[in-house]
Amino acid sequence: MSSSTSEVDLLIIGAGPAGLMAAAWASSCKLNARIIDEKDARVRTGQADGLHCRTLEIMDSFGSPSIAHEILGQACVIKEISSWAWYEDCIERSESIRSGEEDLLGSRYPQVSLCQGSVEQAFLNFLERDGDSIRIERNLTPLRLHVDQAQVGDHHAYPVEVHVQQLRDDELASPDQISDSKMTAVEIVRAKYVLGTDGAHSWTRKALGLRMEGDRTNKHFAVMDLIPLSDFPDIRISCVIHSLSGSIMTLPREGGLVRFYVQLGESSITGRDFDRSTVSADDIIKIARKIMHPYTLDYDHCDWFSVYTVGQRLAEIFSHHDRVFLAGDAVHTHSPTMGAGMNVSMQDSYNLVWKIVTAIRTGNRSILATYNTERLAVAKELMVKDRAMSDFYCDGPSVNSKSYQKFREDFRDFVSGVAVQYSPTILTSPVEKDPPEHKDIQQPHRQKISSMPSLATNLVLGQRIPSYLVTNHFTAEVVHLHSALKSTGHWRILLFPGTFSGRYVFERYCDLGQRLEAPNSFVRTCTPISAPIDSIIEVLTIHTDDRNDFDALSLPNIFHPWRADKGHQYWRIFAKDNDQGEDVYKAFGIYERIGCAVVVRPDQHVAYIGDLWDLESLGRFFENILALKNDERDRKGVNV
Amino acid sequence: MSSSTSEVDLLIIGAGPAGLMAAAWASSCKLNARIIDEKDARVRTGQADGLHCRTLEIMDSFGSPSIAHEILGQACVIKEISSWAWYEDCIERSESIRSGEEDLLGSRYPQVSLCQGSVEQAFLNFLERDGDSIRIERNLTPLRLHVDQAQVGDHHAYPVEVHVQQLRDDELASPDQISDSKMTAVEIVRAKYVLGTDGAHSWTRKALGLRMEGDRTNKHFAVMDLIPLSDFPDIRISCVIHSLSGSIMTLPREGGLVRFYVQLGESSITGRDFDRSTVSADDIIKIARKIMHPYTLDYDHCDWFSVYTVGQRLAEIFSHHDRVFLAGDAVHTHSPTMGAGMNVSMQDSYNLVWKIVTAIRTGNRSILATYNTERLAVAKELMVKDRAMSDFYCDGPSVNSKSYQKFREDFRDFVSGVAVQYSPTILTSPVEKDPPEHKDIQQPHRQKISSMPSLATNLVLGQRIPSYLVTNHFTAEVVHLHSALKSTGHWRILLFPGTFSGRYVFERYCDLGQRLEAPNSFVRTCTPISAPIDSIIEVLTIHTDDRNDFDALSLPNIFHPWRADKGHQYWRIFAKDNDQGEDVYKAFGIYERIGCAVVVRPDQHVAYIGDLWDLESLGRFFENILALKNDERDRKGVNV
Repeated sequence: MSSSTSEVDLLIIGAGPAGLMAAAWASSCKLNARIIDEKDARVRTGQADGLHCRTLEIMDSFGSPSIAHEILGQACVIKEISSWAWYEDCIERSESIRSGEEDLLGSRYPQVSLCQGSVEQAFLNFLERDGDSIRIERNLTPLRLHVDQAQVGDHHAYPVEVHVQQLRDDELASPDQISDSKMTAVEIVRAKYVLGTDGAHSWTRKALGLRMEGDRTNKHFAVMDLIPLSDFPDIRISCVIHSLSGSIMTLPREGGLVRFYVQLGESSITGRDFDRSTVSADDIIKIARKIMHPYTLDYDHCDWFSVYTVGQRLAEIFSHHDRVFLAGDAVHTHSPTMGAGMNVSMQDSYNLVWKIVTAIRTGNRSILATYNTERLAVAKELMVKDRAMSDFYCDGPSVNSKSYQKFREDFRDFVSGVAVQYSPTILTSPVEKDPPEHKDIQQPHRQKISSMPSLATNLVLGQRIPSYLVTNHFTAEVVHLHSALKSTGHWRILLFPGTFSGRYVFERYCDLGQRLEAPNSFVRTCTPISAPIDSIIEVLTIHTDDRNDFDALSLPNIFHPWRADKGHQYWRIFAKDNDQGEDVYKAFGIYERIGCAVVVRPDQHVAYIGDLWDLESLGRFFENILALKNDERDRKGVNV
Repeated sequence: MSSSTSEVDLLIIGAGPAGLMAAAWASSCKLNARIIDEKDARVRTGQADGLHCRTLEIMDSFGSPSIAHEILGQACVIKEISSWAWYEDCIERSESIRSGEEDLLGSRYPQVSLCQGSVEQAFLNFLERDGDSIRIERNLTPLRLHVDQAQVGDHHAYPVEVHVQQLRDDELASPDQISDSKMTAVEIVRAKYVLGTDGAHSWTRKALGLRMEGDRTNKHFAVMDLIPLSDFPDIRISCVIHSLSGSIMTLPREGGLVRFYVQLGESSITGRDFDRSTVSADDIIKIARKIMHPYTLDYDHCDWFSVYTVGQRLAEIFSHHDRVFLAGDAVHTHSPTMGAGMNVSMQDSYNLVWKIVTAIRTGNRSILATYNTERLAVAKELMVKDRAMSDFYCDGPSVNSKSYQKFREDFRDFVSGVAVQYSPTILTSPVEKDPPEHKDIQQPHRQKISSMPSLATNLVLGQRIPSYLVTNHFTAEVVHLHSALKSTGHWRILLFPGTFSGRYVFERYCDLGQRLEAPNSFVRTCTPISAPIDSIIEVLTIHTDDRNDFDALSLPNIFHPWRADKGHQYWRIFAKDNDQGEDVYKAFGIYERIGCAVVVRPDQHVAYIGDLWDLESLGRFFENILALKNDERDRKGVNV
C-alpha cells in the first residue's frame, strides 16, 4: 500500500446538493478546493425534489446563464395547493390555496419541483462550463480524519489530514467488503478546511465523534414517484388528502411524474418494529387507492419508491475547531414532506464557503464561528416546524382545528427561505438602540458597530435583501437588484443618495466617492495593494433621477471603476425603475431626501444599515472583518 | 475514387443559423435528415449578432429548457436606442427612444444581441441534448447536384442526387486546391428534398443556376467588435451617431463588447474601385474617433472586424421544382445594420421544414409551393426596408427630415418579425368577404374555405398568433399561450367556448368534442389509423371559468387525450388568466358569449378563424391540407 500527500485549501466530502453548492462557491471564488464522493455517479431517481424561492435566488446568483436558468427550464411550478377531506363516503376538495412564494418579500421565483438528480446535474454543468474549475472525484473513500489541534489557530497551516482511497473498478461492486491488502494506494490530503456534506450516515460526522440528538416516531410513510393513471381532478396540483384510511400528500413533478407520500399507519413502539423491506410499490398503490376513493389510481411507470419513518434528528454542533464543518443531512434529518431538506442543506454550505475564502485571504478566522451560530439556529427552527408539519399531515386539519391555509401561512415564510434572519455577530451589526448590556460574544474586544434600521424601514438586518427592479444607468436595462449581487465573493455597499438634482447632493456624493477611493480609505486597507479597488468591496449607487439627467461617468472612479483592458464598470450605477412601476426606495422603506448606506454580505444578507455619509461607521464595520494583515496586503493579486 | 450511395428524406447543405434552424425542426419532427458543412467548426467571432423578438419566440418553441432560454442567459438586452447629432463643434444626444420590442403584438421578448457563434452553439447544444438526433457532419463538400425531373411528382421518389466528399485532414488547409486524384471517397446522397443554407456564395444556388438580382452601392462601412475604452456616456446603448465626419451605428453586446458600424466614405463608382483589404482596425478606430469627437475611443481587445459595401441582392425564386429549396443569405443579402439578416434567414427555414414533413407524411406536395410565395414576399419587403435604412444611416435625419423615432416606428414591426403576414394560400384561408373574383391560384380545384375574422377582431390571418398569459386548468400554472404551441409539427385547433356556466354550453361543447373524436371526423381521417388521436392535430380549449368551477376531465377525451402509459394530457385546457390581469379573450378580440375556433399552423401562424360550432368548415380546411391517401393512413405510427 503506497501513499502520496497533497495539500488543498478546502476538501469537500460528499457531492450531493450541499457539497455541489460548496463546489460552486469554491469555483466562483477560485478557491483551491477538491470535492470527493464514494459513489460512482450522481443520483438518478428519487430522493429530494422540492425547491423553494430562496434556493432559486441562490442558484440564480451563480453563472450566466445561471444554474437557476437551467433548473427552471425543466422544473414543475407549484402554483396551487389543495386540501381534500373525507365527507360521508368519499373525499372532496375543501380548500384551494396559492403557493405564492413568488409574492414573498421581493422574491421572484415560485416554488418548483425537480428530482435531485437533475438539480445535481445543473451544478455539474455549471462546474463544467467554468473551464479550469473543480471536477467531482468519484469512487474515493475517506478512511481517516485527524485534526492537529496545535495548528488550528495558525492561518497558514494545513491542520486537517484526511486519508482517501480510490476504489478500483473491481472493488466498486461491493466497497464494504474490501480487505486492506487489496486496496489501491492511499492519498493523504492535508487541508486547511474540510466540509462534510456526506449525508445522513455522514462518515465525517462519525469521524469527529459527533452524535445526533432526537429520534424517530411511530409514523411510517411510503414515498413514490410515478406517472399516475387517474381521474382525480387535482392530480397535477400539490394536494393534502385526509381520508378515513389515512393521508396522502402529492407533489406534481417534471415529465408527467407525481410524487406521492402515502401514510402506512403507525406501529406500536417507536418505529423499530416496522419492517420496511417488505413493502412493495403495489402495496403502496393499494393503500393510496383506498385513501383516494372514489377516484382511480394506477400506473404504468414507477420511477422510484422508498419507505421511511418520520423523525427529527439534529447534531449538537456543526463545526470542529472551525476547521472541519458539517452541512446538510450530516447534521439534520427530518421528514421530507415539507420539501425543505435539499434547500436547507444547500443553504448551509452557501452560508459557509465564502467565509472560508475570507478567512484564508485575510487571516481573520473569527468569522468562521458564525457558521455554527447562524445555521444551527436555522436547523433548530426546522426541527420545530417539521414536527408540527408531520403532526398536521398525519392527523389532519380537524384534529388540529386549523385550516390548511392558516397552517401554511405559519410556515411558508420559513420554508421559502427568504425569512431566515441571522442574529447579530461580527458579520451582522446589531441595531443602534441595543440595550447597553448587549455584548458581542464573538468579538468582545472589537469596537462596536451598530445599524440604523430606521433609514430603511422595510429591510431586516440579518435577512437576505429582497430583490426589486432597478434600471441600469448605462444600459437602460431593467434588471433585478439581485443581478448586481451575484455570488462572486464580493461584499457590496449599496448607496442610496436619492436625487442629484440639487447641486449640493451631487457635490457631496462626489466628495464621498473621493473619500472612498482615498489611500487611507477602508476600501483600500481591506484590498491587497496590487489588486483593483473593487476586488473585495463593490460600491453600488441606486439613485432616483432619470438616466439621461446627468453624466454618471463624471462621478468619481470608485462608482464605475476603470480597468485598462475593459474600460469602465457599467454595472454599478442604477436608477430607480420608472418603467415597470417598482420603486426600490419605497420597497426598502428608504426616504429619498435622506438616503442611506446598506452593506450586503457575499451571501446577499443585510449586514449593516447606516447613514449615507457616515464613512467612519462603515469603515469600522469592514475593518473588523476584512482588514488585512500586512503580509496579506502585499500579496500580488487576490483570488476573490 | 470509390463511392457509396445513401438515401435521406432531407439533406441540409450549410450549418449556419438557417441550416441549424432546419436541423432543429427535423430533430423535433424525427425527420430522417442530415446536415453537412464544408467548414470544420462553427463561427467563432463576428458575423451576425442581432436577434429580434419573433426569433426568440421561435427559439423558445424548441426544447425544454428551450434554445431561447440558453440565448437569453448570455445575450445583451437592447432596451434603449439613442440618436446623436453634430451641434456646432461636437456631437450631442438628440433623441433617446425605447427599443420596445417586448411590447409589440403580444410578444414577450426584447431585442437582444449575441454573436452568431453563440447562437449556433445554442442550436448545437439543443441537437446534442436530443439523444439520437441529427449531428452536423463537417468537412463535407458538395460536388454535384442533379434533379431527376421525371420523378419530382412522385412522392415516394428520391429525385435529388447530391455527390458529397469528405475532406481529409491534410486537405483541410486549402480545400480549394485539391486535385481529383487526391480526393477521398465520394458519397452519393439520394434525397427526397434538399435545402441549401450555404450563405451568400451558395454552392447550391449556383448548382441550380439561379442568379441574384441587385447590386452594391458606393457606400462602404467597417464593422468591428471590440471592448471599448471610452468616456462616451451611451457606450452601452445602441446609438446612431451622425457627425460632420460621417456616421456610426453601435450595438452593445455580451461580455463587454460593442459592435461598431463605421462609415468609411463613398467611392466614385459603385463600390468596385474600393480596396477593402487595406483597411486595418486602427484605421477604423481613427475614423470613429473623429466622428465621436469630443469623446474618447480606444480598445485593448478587438474581437473581429471586417469591411463591406452596402448593397441589396435577391434571388428570383427560392425553390426548384419544390424539391430543392434555398434559404437565408443564399437568396437574399443586404446591409447588416438593421440586425435583420440572421433573423430572416432562420425564419426562412422555420417556414419550410414542417411543410416538408407534412408533404412526406401525407403525399400532398402542393403545400410546398407556399414556401416560395411566403418567404419571397418577406425578402422583397426586406430589400425595400434595407434600402431606406441604409440611406437614413448614411445621410442622417436632417436630410431625410424625419426624426429617428418616427423612422424606427416605420420599420420596427417588420424587423421584430411579429408583423410578418402570409397571404392566403391553401395553408391560410382568405377572409369570408373576399371579392368573388379572388381565386386561389395554388389550389383552383379545391373547395374554397374562408375565415370570419370578425370573431377575433385582433387576430390577423397569416400572422403569427400573439402570446398572452393563460392559466392551465389542471396545474394552475400561469403560462404563455405559446408554451402550448411548441414546434413539434402539430397543427392546433384553439377553441374559445367562453363560460360553461350555462348548462347548455357545456352540453353543446361535449357534443362538439364527441363529433371531433367520431370515426368520420376530419381529426381521424387526417391521422394514421394506429396513431393516437392527437398525433397530427391537437385540440386546445381556452375557457373563461374559474378552474375549480367544473371537472374538466368530464369533457370528452379529445380535450385531454388519454394514453395508456401516461394518463390524461393535462396541457390542453386553459382558463383565461385572472391572476396577472391579462385577458386573452380581450387581447384577441373574442366575444365571450360567441366564442370562436382558431387554427394555428405548426409555425404558430393563424391559418383560419371560424365559428366555434362549424366543424364542417374546419374539416374542409384540414382535409385540403392533411387528408391522407389510403396507403399513408394505414401506416403504423407516425413520425410527427
